[in-house]
Amino acid sequence: MNIVVLCGGVGGSKLALGIYEEFPGESVTAIVNTGDDLELFGVHISPDIDTVTYTLAGLVNESSGWGLGDDTFRALGMLERYGHVGWFHLGDADLATHLVRTEMLRNGATMTEVTQFISQRLGVTATVLPMCDEPVRTRVRVADGWLAFQEYFVKRRHADTPFAVEFSGVKDARMSTPVLRALEVADIIVVAPSNPVVSIGPMLAVPGFRESICDARAPVTAVSPFVGSESVTGPADALMRAIGGESTSIGLARHYADWIDRIVIDTSDAPAANDIRDIAVACDVTNTLMRTREDKRHLARFVVEAAW
Amino acid sequence: MNIVVLCGGVGGSKLALGIYEEFPGESVTAIVNTGDDLELFGVHISPDIDTVTYTLAGLVNESSGWGLGDDTFRALGMLERYGHVGWFHLGDADLATHLVRTEMLRNGATMTEVTQFISQRLGVTATVLPMCDEPVRTRVRVADGWLAFQEYFVKRRHADTPFAVEFSGVKDARMSTPVLRALEVADIIVVAPSNPVVSIGPMLAVPGFRESICDARAPVTAVSPFVGSESVTGPADALMRAIGGESTSIGLARHYADWIDRIVIDTSDAPAANDIRDIAVACDVTNTLMRTREDKRHLARFVVEAAW
Repeated sequence: MNIVVLCGGVGGSKLALGIYEEFPGESVTAIVNTGDDLELFGVHISPDIDTVTYTLAGLVNESSGWGLGDDTFRALGMLERYGHVGWFHLGDADLATHLVRTEMLRNGATMTEVTQFISQRLGVTATVLPMCDEPVRTRVRVADGWLAFQEYFVKRRHADTPFAVEFSGVKDARMSTPVLRALEVADIIVVAPSNPVVSIGPMLAVPGFRESICDARAPVTAVSPFVGSESVTGPADALMRAIGGESTSIGLARHYADWIDRIVIDTSDAPAANDIRDIAVACDVTNTLMRTREDKRHLARFVVEAAW
Repeated sequence: MNIVVLCGGVGGSKLALGIYEEFPGESVTAIVNTGDDLELFGVHISPDIDTVTYTLAGLVNESSGWGLGDDTFRALGMLERYGHVGWFHLGDADLATHLVRTEMLRNGATMTEVTQFISQRLGVTATVLPMCDEPVRTRVRVADGWLAFQEYFVKRRHADTPFAVEFSGVKDARMSTPVLRALEVADIIVVAPSNPVVSIGPMLAVPGFRESICDARAPVTAVSPFVGSESVTGPADALMRAIGGESTSIGLARHYADWIDRIVIDTSDAPAANDIRDIAVACDVTNTLMRTREDKRHLARFVVEAAW
């Protein structure tokens, strides 16, 4: 069975890990957002790719959900001595990943090749794919102008009300052959409970991506990141409103309706199931919170079995 | 009083520190070799500049004489996981210096500007100057070909017999205005007991450097790095032989005779003093080993007073 999961960072990687652990005999491919990528001090950082890779490798910092477990921050402390405002959490061992990526890119490798090299070196047997090889940069408009995504998200701790979102460069991006192929041969496509606007949004904006999913033979099942009218983590609620949507599982169903078949919502949102079915999207109900390893594996099996 | 010291890394920075501490009221300028510079993972590393700067800032690792005290090596460990053979000792906090330097250079700053920024940020009130702004790369010929200096020195632990030395790029280098000016206004020029071939050699090879020293009004005093026929640290003896010289204080006096006025040799080499004076170079004798802080300050005062 070929299982494809579309995901962003922390939330998405948890479901990706559940699938990876629960279906060890199957081919698992994670297609990951790169709209959050940034350059700091000349090094190329891919936060979502790294979170997914470190999570699947069993190396992630369990308490934060990103970065390497037990990492240190000596380089960052020294950068601050040089006057850098250290708003981006750059771990010392983590920095090595960025240095390797940056050097490979400079030597002409694609993001796909770099990501494969890094994930393989870290012992990940799933396939981790960037959504595309071209640079796409998510920007968020707040009261005082457009911000690079990490500036909005990390530096300002997503405290600003977002009014609009754009994916700079996405018009020049194209589907990579491995992403195209993964969607074609998929038996099931899972949309992780990642931020619909800034994690799943950028991939849908890659020319041809949405069409490839619609053309795929696999059923497409999304897990809602909303419980009630709030997102489980991060600013998905505010960002949904910024693009004129509603920050609920019903709002998500409407937002995804033209390209998904099924949505899985949290038990506490069970009353919304019929409203979702009215939008012509199948709906299943289970515990979607992934606090423990068992939660992740339960959700993974539930999603795959519901679709299959 | 304007004191200028020409130096390389570990040995030179000890005397520079002695001068800096012993003459706190005077203007101290260190002109530092950059022939050892290298790029690793796209970051520009200036080993000698960093050693001098960290030493003057009181931040150097006291036991090794280079790197930052109490640094960690997480990034290097992770780089090894990615297959990099970690022969170059890249500390985590140290890496921040390289990142800042690399970004400033990429944004168009000169090595002189970068070095000034870093040393000032670390609280150094002496002036640290790279020997020039252009890239010069020292290469050493051994039995199986030419090696980049750090490959010869660190990776192969200077175990190969060197047969020749070249300073790639030095013909296109030129004296920077700050270096020219420092030599012009110097009241005393001290040549640290650094490697004569690969630390002092590259600066003498910068077009105009040797002439500027000869034209300077200041007396020029060199401290010999040799005790008997061996260098106190590193491969200065083998490298002196590689360029057809003799690895003794007498050999050094001959090698430097046309541009220095005076040489300070170690007490144990006292019998060589008259031979050195026969080469028309003044010679003074004292303890040149710098094991303790007092040793450094004693030698600093001795050298300055002998010349003055």
